[in-house]
Amino acid sequence: MKNVTFITGGIKSGKSSYAVKLAMQYKKPRIFIATAEAFDDEMKKRIDMHKQERGRNFETIEEHIHLSKALKSSIGSICIIDCITVWISNLLYYEKIKEIELFLETLQNHPCDIIIVSNEVGMGIMPNNKLSRKYADLLGTTNQKIAKTANSVIFMISGIPLYIKKGGITNEPT
Amino acid sequence: MKNVTFITGGIKSGKSSYAVKLAMQYKKPRIFIATAEAFDDEMKKRIDMHKQERGRNFETIEEHIHLSKALKSSIGSICIIDCITVWISNLLYYEKIKEIELFLETLQNHPCDIIIVSNEVGMGIMPNNKLSRKYADLLGTTNQKIAKTANSVIFMISGIPLYIKKGGITNEPT
Amino acid sequence: MKNVTFITGGIKSGKSSYAVKLAMQYKKPRIFIATAEAFDDEMKKRIDMHKQERGRNFETIEEHIHLSKALKSSIGSICIIDCITVWISNLLYYEKIKEIELFLETLQNHPCDIIIVSNEVGMGIMPNNKLSRKYADLLGTTNQKIAKTANSVIFMISGIPLYIKKGGITNEPT
Repeated sequence: MKNVTFITGGIKSGKSSYAVKLAMQYKKPRIFIATAEAFDDEMKKRIDMHKQERGRNFETIEEHIHLSKALKSSIGSICIIDCITVWISNLLYYEKIKEIELFLETLQNHPCDIIIVSNEVGMGIMPNNKLSRKYADLLGTTNQKIAKTANSVIFMISGIPLYIKKGGITNEPT
Repeated sequence: MKNVTFITGGIKSGKSSYAVKLAMQYKKPRIFIATAEAFDDEMKKRIDMHKQERGRNFETIEEHIHLSKALKSSIGSICIIDCITVWISNLLYYEKIKEIELFLETLQNHPCDIIIVSNEVGMGIMPNNKLSRKYADLLGTTNQKIAKTANSVIFMISGIPLYIKKGGITNEPT
Repeated sequence: MKNVTFITGGIKSGKSSYAVKLAMQYKKPRIFIATAEAFDDEMKKRIDMHKQERGRNFETIEEHIHLSKALKSSIGSICIIDCITVWISNLLYYEKIKEIELFLETLQNHPCDIIIVSNEVGMGIMPNNKLSRKYADLLGTTNQKIAKTANSVIFMISGIPLYIKKGGITNEPT
């Protein structure tokens, strides 16, 4: 049985580092699927910095849209997807939101061990514009579906991993 | 003894769905108190969608201001209040913030089983305007008072319910 | 062995009150290091209100920049630092971010029992300006480093303390 691990949290809460730490525990080929496109120098710098941190332990694949396809060609490996936040924003920009459904389908077939990084963006004052609300809704809904499929869900707070689902189990009273 | 359950979390984190799921476990008349007013088409669409999801299992009451009164006329039922976030914003708009005190008083008398939905809005960069800060302060303070009275407090993250208070108990060291 | 306790959470989530509650359990001189400067009347009012709440149980020190120095002169006491959020913003404004390193070094030497209050600001839609992103990054990174050193880390939600690290231990599976 393959693992699906979902890591969510705020900006600079340690999500990516923890994803890398978890992936290092797997003794199989490691793939890092980066969803970000380098639109400007600030972005390019961030991407390069992250790539250097991972070093030789990962093969990096840049895939901004077709995550389902990327997963299907990663059979036998442990795959980090970093991150859903940027991917959803790409899908809105390129009008490809149907990719979400394809991705969720592929996820349920467990093609490989997968660690998925996303963000919480809905716990601040919502900006007064329709696009931000649409984005927050779509990301929130997608996060829910991924978390439902995942057997581990981790909420990162100030670098501390809080497991809110472990082996498929939450802390709901029975 | 009646239950007071408080559900908080971000946008599209699954709060309302979980409130409905919990309410379905009660074998008594179910009331859904909706605090939102349909100011525009986007809002109207959201409200109608939610109403359809609940179906025939709930009587829906629209109450934008007088939550205390609405609770008092719901004796013997299980009541969802959805949500405090919008209600506080109504109270500011109509200059009725004294209603908060009335509501908290009624809550402590446990007129019926109650499930209360609210939002976390204070974990983002605070917008540089006084009204947003006032709103965030008032909502935060009210959330604290409700959570104190509640015997269960649930923090929703990506659709996963995290019980941070269960049967009146938190995970504080003793 | 001295304790380092880190309390984080959203606006009006009860962080400062909980810090005071914890400090009251120590039977030693209590110092409250306030990092905020009163730039305007709104701020001044907030600061005075907080000071009154603490009453005679604390000596209040106002230190906007040099937290390391303030800690070093507090040996033998229990010290609340409230808060890192405002301090980081001061450091950016006065171009003194090297103070962060000094502070973290001092922290690791445990000069006194310390309770540190900070904020989560990275769980909302990020405003579209570079300074906000820089600030969120710097605060997030600093929060991570403090949380790593701390033996207790508490995430406040609607006034409920959620211990995500207790006696150095998280809920990570082993």
